Amino acid sequence: MLSTMQDVPLIVSRILRHGSTIHGDAQVTTWTGDAEAPHRRSFAEIGDRAAQLAHALREELGVLPEERIGTLMWNNAEHVEAYFAVPSMGSVLHTLNLRLPSEQLVWIVGHAADRVILVNGSLLALLAPLLPQLHTVEHVVVVGPGDRALLDGCRPAVHEYEELLAGRPTAYEWPELDEREAAAMCYTSGTTGDPKGVVFSHRSIYLHAMQVNMGESMSLTDADTTLPVVPMFHVNAWGLPHATFMTGVGMLMPDRFLQPAPLAEMIETERPTHAAAVPTIWQGLLTELADKPRDISCLKTVTIGGSACPPALMKEFEERHGVRVCHAWGMTETSPLGTIAREPGSALTPEEAWPYRLTQGRFPASVEARLAGPDGELMPWDGESAGELEVRGPWIAGAYYGGEGAEPVRPEDKFSPDGWLRTGDVGVITREGFLTLTDRAKDVIKSGGEWISSVALENHLMAHEAIAEAAVVAVPDGKWGERPLAAVVLAEDAGAVTYQELRAFLGERVARWQLPERWARIEEVPKTSVGKFDKKVIRARYAAGALDVTML
Amino acid sequence: MLSTMQDVPLIVSRILRHGSTIHGDAQVTTWTGDAEAPHRRSFAEIGDRAAQLAHALREELGVLPEERIGTLMWNNAEHVEAYFAVPSMGSVLHTLNLRLPSEQLVWIVGHAADRVILVNGSLLALLAPLLPQLHTVEHVVVVGPGDRALLDGCRPAVHEYEELLAGRPTAYEWPELDEREAAAMCYTSGTTGDPKGVVFSHRSIYLHAMQVNMGESMSLTDADTTLPVVPMFHVNAWGLPHATFMTGVGMLMPDRFLQPAPLAEMIETERPTHAAAVPTIWQGLLTELADKPRDISCLKTVTIGGSACPPALMKEFEERHGVRVCHAWGMTETSPLGTIAREPGSALTPEEAWPYRLTQGRFPASVEARLAGPDGELMPWDGESAGELEVRGPWIAGAYYGGEGAEPVRPEDKFSPDGWLRTGDVGVITREGFLTLTDRAKDVIKSGGEWISSVALENHLMAHEAIAEAAVVAVPDGKWGERPLAAVVLAEDAGAVTYQELRAFLGERVARWQLPERWARIEEVPKTSVGKFDKKVIRARYAAGALDVTML
Repeated sequence: MLSTMQDVPLIVSRILRHGSTIHGDAQVTTWTGDAEAPHRRSFAEIGDRAAQLAHALREELGVLPEERIGTLMWNNAEHVEAYFAVPSMGSVLHTLNLRLPSEQLVWIVGHAADRVILVNGSLLALLAPLLPQLHTVEHVVVVGPGDRALLDGCRPAVHEYEELLAGRPTAYEWPELDEREAAAMCYTSGTTGDPKGVVFSHRSIYLHAMQVNMGESMSLTDADTTLPVVPMFHVNAWGLPHATFMTGVGMLMPDRFLQPAPLAEMIETERPTHAAAVPTIWQGLLTELADKPRDISCLKTVTIGGSACPPALMKEFEERHGVRVCHAWGMTETSPLGTIAREPGSALTPEEAWPYRLTQGRFPASVEARLAGPDGELMPWDGESAGELEVRGPWIAGAYYGGEGAEPVRPEDKFSPDGWLRTGDVGVITREGFLTLTDRAKDVIKSGGEWISSVALENHLMAHEAIAEAAVVAVPDGKWGERPLAAVVLAEDAGAVTYQELRAFLGERVARWQLPERWARIEEVPKTSVGKFDKKVIRARYAAGALDVTML
Repeated sequence: MLSTMQDVPLIVSRILRHGSTIHGDAQVTTWTGDAEAPHRRSFAEIGDRAAQLAHALREELGVLPEERIGTLMWNNAEHVEAYFAVPSMGSVLHTLNLRLPSEQLVWIVGHAADRVILVNGSLLALLAPLLPQLHTVEHVVVVGPGDRALLDGCRPAVHEYEELLAGRPTAYEWPELDEREAAAMCYTSGTTGDPKGVVFSHRSIYLHAMQVNMGESMSLTDADTTLPVVPMFHVNAWGLPHATFMTGVGMLMPDRFLQPAPLAEMIETERPTHAAAVPTIWQGLLTELADKPRDISCLKTVTIGGSACPPALMKEFEERHGVRVCHAWGMTETSPLGTIAREPGSALTPEEAWPYRLTQGRFPASVEARLAGPDGELMPWDGESAGELEVRGPWIAGAYYGGEGAEPVRPEDKFSPDGWLRTGDVGVITREGFLTLTDRAKDVIKSGGEWISSVALENHLMAHEAIAEAAVVAVPDGKWGERPLAAVVLAEDAGAVTYQELRAFLGERVARWQLPERWARIEEVPKTSVGKFDKKVIRARYAAGALDVTML
């Protein structure tokens, strides 16, 4: 029996139309490096310009539905215009991660078969040398200041963004698309094998934006301004551009000014109420603020995700700056909102709340979760039984892009036979649904039939005053199968701490059989392009004998 | 180009599964009339019992997918169980409005072809006399205390709810339904013609529950407890049962104790943070609190909808009790959330905020709106140009139920040729999307080619201290086409106010040509079964010469 409800699709153009009319006065403020002269553009203007961009792409560059448009851009108003114009016209927005190695960028553009690339002028030095290898690209559209001479003699046609838009109609008959059609795509910065393309649908983007705005998640309204430090090429800036247009939230966009000093200045000057970034960004900001105090109390909540956040960082934000830090977990394949860590109910004291807030958080109704144990069996939600996290839901990937005309691909190690996403994260879930991740599945240390959490060891080590950073990896061991190796970065003022002291410090916090025997000092923990610990590099160095390892 | 997202349906069983596991400790508290002994049931228990109910319906009563199950019940935990069990198993929950006249109830049960009716024992006196005419009903399931003897000798089989559930499995393999399938239905208490059935889909219920929980709407989280005074047979209690299970919000259920005194007592005792009801309920509560003060400051927000809320009522709640009143507009056909009235942004003073908060509010992204003028032309959003409100969206009705095996019906006066819902409400919308309703289309007063707002006249009159209630209706006029008639209910301590004085009072507030010439005193304003002014009764009395009209 069918319902009598209207059959109205959940599509990106609906979010654009709503944001640019009912919230037309809301603003995207783009930082220019000059606190006196940030760039401001209203949602209404962005609506007009998104229509102009769509006309230009369609009529001037001949872009057809389903074709991919690459963006190599910072977080700024023009990138927001592309975010809405491209999917709304039925084409596919492909955000390019400017921190990837050149060869990966080339591979990704070719795999997606991007026909047009929108590029910030400030990134031409990155793009120009690659163009000879970007065979699918026919048009390069340059946005904002930068040295155009870098493009002299390149094969694709070069266009100026503002010239393309100028004089075109500020309305566009956005097509009534099927909500399951592709709207945007993003390749994972996979540390093994080729990058993998996740293709978001209009439906997944729309539902995810609703979830971001729910009271239990980020609860953003038009009384808020959000600062997405998380790049727009990193899982759609966690859905914030769509969430803001859905409810009229102001946006403060850092453009290329992602260093701690300008971030601190733009927060003090523009007074956002919310911000989102990975932990390393916030760590840098804290250091900056210790050097040069600024008032960042405008921030009510800071959402931290992308990798596990050290508890000390969260507490320092809260105690020193009055800013509440909220943990979230997700990945490209989860759009990314998978969990968010708010304490349950209203009756807990701050001290009682901390244990909940230090988890990855709880799943919303649209994200189903289960834990697969070492042998694939489902593990109970008892807060103790560890398993690989598998998730299911309308904004969770069920496959990767197979390339033009090809079927999507479903690697066995990424998707279960019944279609759930295998996240590659190992953790436990409590009876109340709070997730604590302990390791990446590939990083987990399997010692004598038990799992040792490398993340727990790292967090304990990083709480020691002599340690700046620590990474713990599994290394082969004849007797136990695998054993943990602790690679530590000493703090500048660490003094003469010994491995024995560090091991004793750990010994007060974890079971004796989990204590690393192997210790090495490193200059810094290698990181991926998005700032995560890149532990495979440490394992490789160990395997190659390039670490100075002490056995205790 | 299809996305690579999982294809996971938005269905009610997903909300149930989530609420009864991750929020399993949240509670439905049902008032029993005894403040010492309310009835408490956890979401986990409700999940278990919903599974038992589904087994009972399927295996004991032979209920099939798509069959309709009627409920004639108050707001209580068992009604919540039916809310989740019936749609989750693929059948259709049909909530029956216990305030409807008997002949309408009989018509509705027959039209929906309900096979089973769940009825509260306390409502058997209402149901029993109708049973001989309810030819489709094969089973009556009695829930809670009440005189079973009333059912002696009735044709349908009679079952005890608790006996039906007892011993059945507490898990059910909820089917993976198409999200566009029917989940629930509700007939409008249409004041003209036969009642019309609105059939909600799983999709519409799911999306609507997300919207209810969004920061811009009711922003409910597991830190809240909501008191739905609005009956569960009135547009799914405004979606609150679904919204609460989605995010773990506690529910305080008033059962049959809807009088001001027990409402005041349950608020003071159980301390809900949110409540929802029509204005007449809140008016009664204020009167009760004036007589017998109680602390209701636990309420952060009260959502008022169902009919326009007098400003004086909102201000009294806020100023005397510290409770923020939030206006919402909707109807059965809109699930019902159409608009909600929060002031825009964060920068307004309380005084600046009032004009926004006194509107019906703003539309969320999923509700598109337009105004159709007197000749059907689209009216601008300028805050001045009035038109009939038409809406479109995924939780807006596009037709009415046509009966078993029949096509849905789309009356021309209810749906535009391009499928938008004609709400029958006349109003204006500002550039920022704030809706102010002035009249029902059928109540609007068309005087000399202009529209006069009867609601504006009523609100002004009700602000006069001598007036308890006032209704303004259009009556035929030889010269102007139509003119307003003011029917007033004097306050008990009104003294000797004259119609001339009232007209002069109005004259200071509206244009002279809008002032009523015809005045009549009535004992009370007739109301519909859901407490709305029933102005067609006044028009009929006038037409029949049954009003004592004074011409000024």
